Amino acid sequence: MRRIVLALLAVVALAGVVAYMAPVSGQADGEAAPIYGIKIPAGYRDWRLISVAHEEGNLNDLRAQLGNDVAIKAYREGQLPFPDGTIIAALHWNYVSSEENNKVFGRVQSFIAGAPKNIQFMVKDSKKYAATGGWGFADFTDGKPADEAVHKTCFPCHEPAKARDFVFTRYAP
Amino acid sequence: MRRIVLALLAVVALAGVVAYMAPVSGQADGEAAPIYGIKIPAGYRDWRLISVAHEEGNLNDLRAQLGNDVAIKAYREGQLPFPDGTIIAALHWNYVSSEENNKVFGRVQSFIAGAPKNIQFMVKDSKKYAATGGWGFADFTDGKPADEAVHKTCFPCHEPAKARDFVFTRYAP
Repeated sequence: MRRIVLALLAVVALAGVVAYMAPVSGQADGEAAPIYGIKIPAGYRDWRLISVAHEEGNLNDLRAQLGNDVAIKAYREGQLPFPDGTIIAALHWNYVSSEENNKVFGRVQSFIAGAPKNIQFMVKDSKKYAATGGWGFADFTDGKPADEAVHKTCFPCHEPAKARDFVFTRYAP
Repeated sequence: MRRIVLALLAVVALAGVVAYMAPVSGQADGEAAPIYGIKIPAGYRDWRLISVAHEEGNLNDLRAQLGNDVAIKAYREGQLPFPDGTIIAALHWNYVSSEENNKVFGRVQSFIAGAPKNIQFMVKDSKKYAATGGWGFADFTDGKPADEAVHKTCFPCHEPAKARDFVFTRYAP
């Protein structure tokens, strides 16, 4: 009987560990992106929202940044630098005028997320990615990673945000 | 010893129930909005993302729609009408030009979420809100509900989306 109790305690403990870890690690899917070797983290679409944005110009998209549990905790507690294990996902969709919404508002003013464009990830591992501020970067379109040339542009572009650990996005309450 | 086993089984079962229910119900905070009697659902900021939008004109905001577990499941499975218990949250922030981002892009093109404006909720209860398509509506600014006049505009505005159970926002993958 003691074995059953111990087994049940083990189940309880394991359930807690799985519940805690599931959104953070999970299985990664598909092909790894070049340079940093990052795969699409399983379950990233279930992560919590950090903020949203709109880029005009050539990008012309609507964006949402999601964070795994480590990221959200760090954001909410104002923790800088972000701890190892932080993953930030940036989801980009085409910027689409919504005729349906415009009819309701009586004017052309409503823009919504259209087809998905690319997805990007920043993964914090201060040892593995020491040469790039502790961050690894990855860019995927339709599940396929962009080429090495694209990935070479990630860190230089994020360098101006060095004071905030190379992360541009602020948390939107 | 059997009691300990039963107690542990109860804990395991209860933990499952709590884990399942926590994001859906939870305690509601603060003052109830007029007409529909809806309070701000606790933990709504942890809900998963449905989509994002930008409204120009007088609204001039960036938006994110979040859904509780019932809402996300219905969206992903294409379930219409939405089942009772669905709650959709709409978070609106001021539309702010990001000088920091613009410097990186070398042109004025980047708009981000500024200070929070209002938060709106749609709550599905087909019996309680039978007169308004099964939906209750609520609008809050700084935790305080808008007045009755504002809440009278919610359902008429959503009526054009009747074919999609009065919900405009589509799920962004």
